[in-house]
Amino acid sequence: MVETIQWTDDGVVMIDQTRLPRVVEYVTCRDFREVAEAIRSMVIRGAPAIGVAAAMGVAIGVQKSNGTDFRAELEVICDTLAKTRPTAVNLFWAIDRMKQLALSMEGKPLAEIRQRLVEEACLVREEDIAINRAIGAHGAPLVPDGKRVLTHCNAGALATAGYGTALGVIRAAVEAGKKIAVFADETRPFLQGARLTAWELQQDGIDTTLITDNMAGHFLRAGTIGCVVVGADRIARNGDVANKIGTYSVAVLAKENGVPFYVAAPISTLDLTLSSGDLIPIEERAAAEVTHVFGVAVAPEGIGVANPAFDVTPNRYVTGIITEKGVAYAPYEESLPRLAASR
Amino acid sequence: MVETIQWTDDGVVMIDQTRLPRVVEYVTCRDFREVAEAIRSMVIRGAPAIGVAAAMGVAIGVQKSNGTDFRAELEVICDTLAKTRPTAVNLFWAIDRMKQLALSMEGKPLAEIRQRLVEEACLVREEDIAINRAIGAHGAPLVPDGKRVLTHCNAGALATAGYGTALGVIRAAVEAGKKIAVFADETRPFLQGARLTAWELQQDGIDTTLITDNMAGHFLRAGTIGCVVVGADRIARNGDVANKIGTYSVAVLAKENGVPFYVAAPISTLDLTLSSGDLIPIEERAAAEVTHVFGVAVAPEGIGVANPAFDVTPNRYVTGIITEKGVAYAPYEESLPRLAASR
Repeated sequence: MVETIQWTDDGVVMIDQTRLPRVVEYVTCRDFREVAEAIRSMVIRGAPAIGVAAAMGVAIGVQKSNGTDFRAELEVICDTLAKTRPTAVNLFWAIDRMKQLALSMEGKPLAEIRQRLVEEACLVREEDIAINRAIGAHGAPLVPDGKRVLTHCNAGALATAGYGTALGVIRAAVEAGKKIAVFADETRPFLQGARLTAWELQQDGIDTTLITDNMAGHFLRAGTIGCVVVGADRIARNGDVANKIGTYSVAVLAKENGVPFYVAAPISTLDLTLSSGDLIPIEERAAAEVTHVFGVAVAPEGIGVANPAFDVTPNRYVTGIITEKGVAYAPYEESLPRLAASR
Repeated sequence: MVETIQWTDDGVVMIDQTRLPRVVEYVTCRDFREVAEAIRSMVIRGAPAIGVAAAMGVAIGVQKSNGTDFRAELEVICDTLAKTRPTAVNLFWAIDRMKQLALSMEGKPLAEIRQRLVEEACLVREEDIAINRAIGAHGAPLVPDGKRVLTHCNAGALATAGYGTALGVIRAAVEAGKKIAVFADETRPFLQGARLTAWELQQDGIDTTLITDNMAGHFLRAGTIGCVVVGADRIARNGDVANKIGTYSVAVLAKENGVPFYVAAPISTLDLTLSSGDLIPIEERAAAEVTHVFGVAVAPEGIGVANPAFDVTPNRYVTGIITEKGVAYAPYEESLPRLAASR
C-alpha cells in the first residue's frame, strides 16, 4: 500500500498527489514553509491528510526553531500553516492540538519539546489510520450488498494517513465479504476521482468504473447504485457538510432517486462552533485549474472562471454521518455533539 | 460570425469542432463517407447541425453516384449516414426528408435530381437559421432580466447552422436589451461548454463564466441563476428530453432550487413516435474520451469507464419547451403534438 505521508529523519515525506497516477513520486518537505506550500499546492490534500501534514509541519518547524523566542516562533509556524487552506477544519484542529501541547511544555528543555512534538505528530498519523478502520467498521454494515457504491472526489488512503474514510467504508464492506462495485466521479477540476480514487481502488482490485461528474445523476436514476459514500472537509453542528465541489449535487440527486447518502469523516472534521454550513468558508482556487488540464488549455484564453473548491450539502440530504465513534443520524444538532462527547 | 457548415463547390465545409477553441480550422468533406465520419468523430455535433450535415451528406452522395441503380445507391448513402450517431433524431429527420425528395424525383434526369438535392440541403441549412431566430424570439421573454442563465453543453451557433437554440434564446434576450450573464458548464467529457459555448459567447461579448459541471448545483442553490436553458437531441411525445449527459442532473438541481428549466429545440427534434424518453437510444462512446483530455491521460491505465453521451430528463423537470412555433408547456402529450401540427 502507498504511504500518503511519513515522518523521516530527512523531513516530512509525501507522495505527490498532483502527479498521480501516471507519475508516482515522493517529495520531502524539510521545513514548515515547504509543508505549508505542499498543502497549498495540493501535493497533499484530503481533510485528514491535511491535518496530519499540519501536525508534522508544526513538529518540523519547532525542530528548526532557534529557541530564542519560542512562543513567537511557534506563532509564525502555526499561522503559516493555518493560512494554506480555509475549508478543511482538520487543519486547524491539528495545528491547535500541536500548539496546545507545545505551550503546555513551555519552560522545559527545547530538545524535550522537540522530541515530544515529533511523537505527537506521528501519533496524529497513527490515530488517523485507526480512526479510519473504525469508520470502516461502523460504515460497512450500511453498504448494500451486491450493488454499486458511488463516491465523489477522493476520501481514500491518499486523503488520510491510510485506509480512507469513504473508501475505508468501501474497503471494510469488501473485507466483510460484500460484493461491491464502485462508481468513481472523476471530480473536476482537480480530478481526484480519476487520478486518485480510481488508482487506489484499482490497486486494491476493487471493481471500479470511472465516470464524469455529470453522469452521476444518470446512474443514480438508473437504479444500480445502492448508496453514496463521500468524505467531508468540515461538518457544522447541524450536520451541514462542506465537501469537494459537486458533493451537494450528488446528494440532491441521491435523495431524488431514493438512494442513501452517507458522509464518512473523523470527529476532528466536526466544527461544533458553527451552527450551520452556511458559515463554513469556501475556498476559491485558481482559474487555471478549470481552464487547463495537466497544462493543456481546454478553454478560450481570457474566459471568466469560477472555481469554488467546496460546496455545502444541507443536512436534510444526509442519511447518516459515519464517524469512528459510530453513526450519527438526524437531528444532527443532537446526535453530533453527543457522539463527539462520547468515549 | 463563424460558419458551422457550408455547401461549396469543393464539398461540405465544416469548422472542426474537435479542435476549437485553440485551433480554428475548416475541413472539407468530399463524399458522403467523409461526412459520415465527420459526424461520428464529432467534427460536427449538435442535433440541428448534424441534421444539416446529414442533408448535405445525402446531396454530396448523390452528386457522386454513378446512377446505375439510383435507389440502391441512395439506400447505401442514407444507411451510412444514419449509422453514425443514434440519439439525435434530427439526423434521421434530415435523411428522411432528403430521401423522400430523391425518391419522389425517380425517373427524372439525374442532373436535375442532383441539383434539387443540393438546393434542398442548402434549404435545410437556411431554414435552421431562421428556426433558431424564431426560437430566440419565443424564448427571450422567458429569460429573467438582470440574472444569470445557466447552460449545459453547446446549443449554440456551432450546434446548428447558426445563431443557436439555447444560445439563440440567450442572444435574443441580449438583443432585446436584457442584462444577461451566462454560466457555461464545461460539459465533460468532450468539453463542448469550455471549448465551444465559452468561445462563442466570448466572441459575441456576452459576459460568460466557465464552471465545471459539478459546480452547477452550488450556483443554482446560491440563487443568482434566473433560469436554465439547454438544447435537446430528441424529445419524446410526453416531453421527456434526451440531451447531453449531465442535463438531467442540472434539471433536478434547478427544480430543487426553484429555478425554471427550459429546453430550446426545433420541431425536428421532436420524436412523436416515442411515448416516453425511456425509449430513446442512448449512445455509449469510447472510454478514451473520459480517460484522456486532448490526448493527455488523466486516469490510470486499464480503469473501467462508462461514457453515455446523453441522458433523459423526465418531463416533470421541464418548465417549458421553446420551439420555432412557440413554447410548449405540460401536459406535453397534448401541447407538443398540437404545436408540431400547427402552421
